[in-house]
Amino acid sequence: MKIVVDAMGSDKRPVPDVQGAVEAAREYNVKVLLVGDETRVRAELVKIGNVPPTVQVVPASQEIEMREHPALAVKDKKDSSIVVGIEQVKQGRGEAFVSMGNTGAILTASVLYLQRIKGVHRPALGALIPTPKGPCLLLDIGANTDCKPEWLDQFAVMGDAYVRSVLGLAKPRVALLANGEEDTKGDQTVQAAHELLRQRAAETGLNFIGNVEGKDVPAHLADVVVCDGFVGNIALKTAEGISKMLNELIESEIKSNPITMIGGALAMPAFKQVKKILDYTEYGGAPLLGVNGVVIIGHGRSNAIAVKHAVRAAKRAVETNILETIRSGVAARA
Amino acid sequence: MKIVVDAMGSDKRPVPDVQGAVEAAREYNVKVLLVGDETRVRAELVKIGNVPPTVQVVPASQEIEMREHPALAVKDKKDSSIVVGIEQVKQGRGEAFVSMGNTGAILTASVLYLQRIKGVHRPALGALIPTPKGPCLLLDIGANTDCKPEWLDQFAVMGDAYVRSVLGLAKPRVALLANGEEDTKGDQTVQAAHELLRQRAAETGLNFIGNVEGKDVPAHLADVVVCDGFVGNIALKTAEGISKMLNELIESEIKSNPITMIGGALAMPAFKQVKKILDYTEYGGAPLLGVNGVVIIGHGRSNAIAVKHAVRAAKRAVETNILETIRSGVAARA
Repeated sequence: MKIVVDAMGSDKRPVPDVQGAVEAAREYNVKVLLVGDETRVRAELVKIGNVPPTVQVVPASQEIEMREHPALAVKDKKDSSIVVGIEQVKQGRGEAFVSMGNTGAILTASVLYLQRIKGVHRPALGALIPTPKGPCLLLDIGANTDCKPEWLDQFAVMGDAYVRSVLGLAKPRVALLANGEEDTKGDQTVQAAHELLRQRAAETGLNFIGNVEGKDVPAHLADVVVCDGFVGNIALKTAEGISKMLNELIESEIKSNPITMIGGALAMPAFKQVKKILDYTEYGGAPLLGVNGVVIIGHGRSNAIAVKHAVRAAKRAVETNILETIRSGVAARA
Repeated sequence: MKIVVDAMGSDKRPVPDVQGAVEAAREYNVKVLLVGDETRVRAELVKIGNVPPTVQVVPASQEIEMREHPALAVKDKKDSSIVVGIEQVKQGRGEAFVSMGNTGAILTASVLYLQRIKGVHRPALGALIPTPKGPCLLLDIGANTDCKPEWLDQFAVMGDAYVRSVLGLAKPRVALLANGEEDTKGDQTVQAAHELLRQRAAETGLNFIGNVEGKDVPAHLADVVVCDGFVGNIALKTAEGISKMLNELIESEIKSNPITMIGGALAMPAFKQVKKILDYTEYGGAPLLGVNGVVIIGHGRSNAIAVKHAVRAAKRAVETNILETIRSGVAARA
C-alpha cells in the first residue's frame, strides 16, 4: 500500500510531516510518497537518516499557505504539494492522501480532481473529538452549510463507515445533533433527516440512536454525531474554546500563589494524564468523506506523532476498503 | 418596585426560592411577591425569621414540574405558581417575574399572558456565559429554531438592551455566531442577518462587530452573541458538557494517586477561584426578551444566591426601562 503524504502541510513544514511519514513507513509497513520541495524534503530525510527505501519523494515546487483562498490557490498553484499529491491518488500512484495543510484547499482539490463518489450529494469533513471514553466523530464540521436532509442522511452513512474502518467499532452508535433528545427536537432539516435515518436504520441495520445534545458529545453517548457544517463548526470551536479557556484559567490561578503552585507541581502527573487522554494527535486528523480517494487532513500545528497517526488512519481506511463501504451505503438509497 | 418571585421553581423549592427572595428584599430595596403553596412558603418564612414587611405571599395551589409538557401544563394548571406569577405582572401588581422553574412553561405562559412587545417577531431566551473577562450573553438559546434573518436582527437589539440595562455596559459589542469571522461566513440566514445588522449599525449606532466563532464566546470577543435557538442550544450545551467532562476528568486523575491528591489539596484554593470566576449564580439566570414584562429564568439547581441575583437582574432591567428600549429598538425598523 502506498500513502501520499504532503511534506509541506504543517506549520513547521517539512519537519514534522517528513518525520511522521518516515516513522509511519517504518512502523506500519506502508510505502510513503512524500510530496514537496525536493531539496528541503531530501535534506530532512538525510537529517533523519536510515530512511527505508519505501519512502520516496515526489517533487512539487509550490506551497499553499494556510491563509490562502482555497479555490484560488488550487487554481493558481498546479504544482503545489496539495494538488500534486491529490493527482498522485487520482492517477493510482497512491491510495490515500494525508496532509496537515489548508483544509479548504485540500477539500477543493479533492472534489475537483478525485470527484465525488457516485451518488454522494456532498462530501463531508469529520473531526474526532477526544473524550475519556474514546473519540466521537463529529461531521460535517465545515464543508457544507445549509444542508438538505438527504445530505445529513449520507453523512451518517459515511461517518459510520469511517468509524467502523478506522476505529474498528462493529456497530457504532450514530446520532443527530439537536437541541434536545426527543425525536421531535431539531430544526426542520434535522427533523426531516431524523425521519430518513429511522427508515435507513430499519432497512440497513444502521445503529441510529436518535438525537443527542451538545453535552452528549463529550459524554460519549454516540460514536458518530451528524450535523450540518455550520452547526458542526460552531460546536467544535466552542468545545476547543472552552477547553482552552479552562486550561488557561486553572493554570493562571495555580500560578497566582506559592502554595497552589506547589500543589500544581505535585498534581502535574494528573494534568499530564488528562492531556494524554484528550490528545488529538492520537486520532490522526479529520477525514474528508465522499470523494474517490481516502483523504485525511490534520491540524496545521501537528507534530510528527500526529502525522504518523494520520498515515495509520489512512492505512486502515484503505485496507478496510472504506470507499466501497460508502459507495454501497449511498447506493442503498440512490 | 415590586418583583414577583416563583416560590415553587427550583429543584429544592421552596427553600432557595424563598430565601433568595427574602435576601433580595433586604439587600436591594425591592418589594417581593412570593407566589406558591401558601402553607409551605409561610413555613419557610417563619424559619428564616425577621422577614421584612416588603415580602408578601400570593397563594398558588399548583406547581409545574420540570418534566411537564410546557403548553399542556400552562393550559391545565391555571393556579400554578408560574401562571399566577405571570398574571400578577400582567395585571400590573408586579413589574417583573423571576422563576427557577420549567423554562418552556414560563416561555409559553409569558407569550400567552404578557404577549409580545409590539413589532417583536419572536421573543428570545438569553444565557449569560461566564468567562474570566466577564459574561457573554448568548441568544437565542432555545426559544426559536429555524429563525428568519429579521428575527436574528431583533435578537441583537434585545440582547444589546439587556446587556446595557443589567450589566451596565455602555456600548456592548454585538456579534453573530458563525463558522468563521469573515463577513461571507455563515449559513444563508446568518449571511442575510449580517447584512441587516450592518444597516442597523449604520442607522442606529448599534455596535455590531460582525461574525464571531464558537471559540470567541469563552474568549469574550463579544458581549452579545446572536444565533438561532437551535444553534444556541447546541453551543451552550457543548460548552457545559466540555466543562463538566474536563472537571470530572481532572478530579478523577488527581484522586488516582496519593501524591497528586496532596497536590490537588494544596491547589484547592486555585480550583475554588476558578469556580468562583465561572460562577453562573453571579448573573442571575436567563432573560426572556421580547414580551411585555421583565422575565428572568434561572437554573432549576439554583441556590438562594442565584435567586437573589436573579431578582437583582430583574430590578436593574425594570429600573433602566428595558421594555421601552426594546420597544423603540424594534420600532426603528418596523
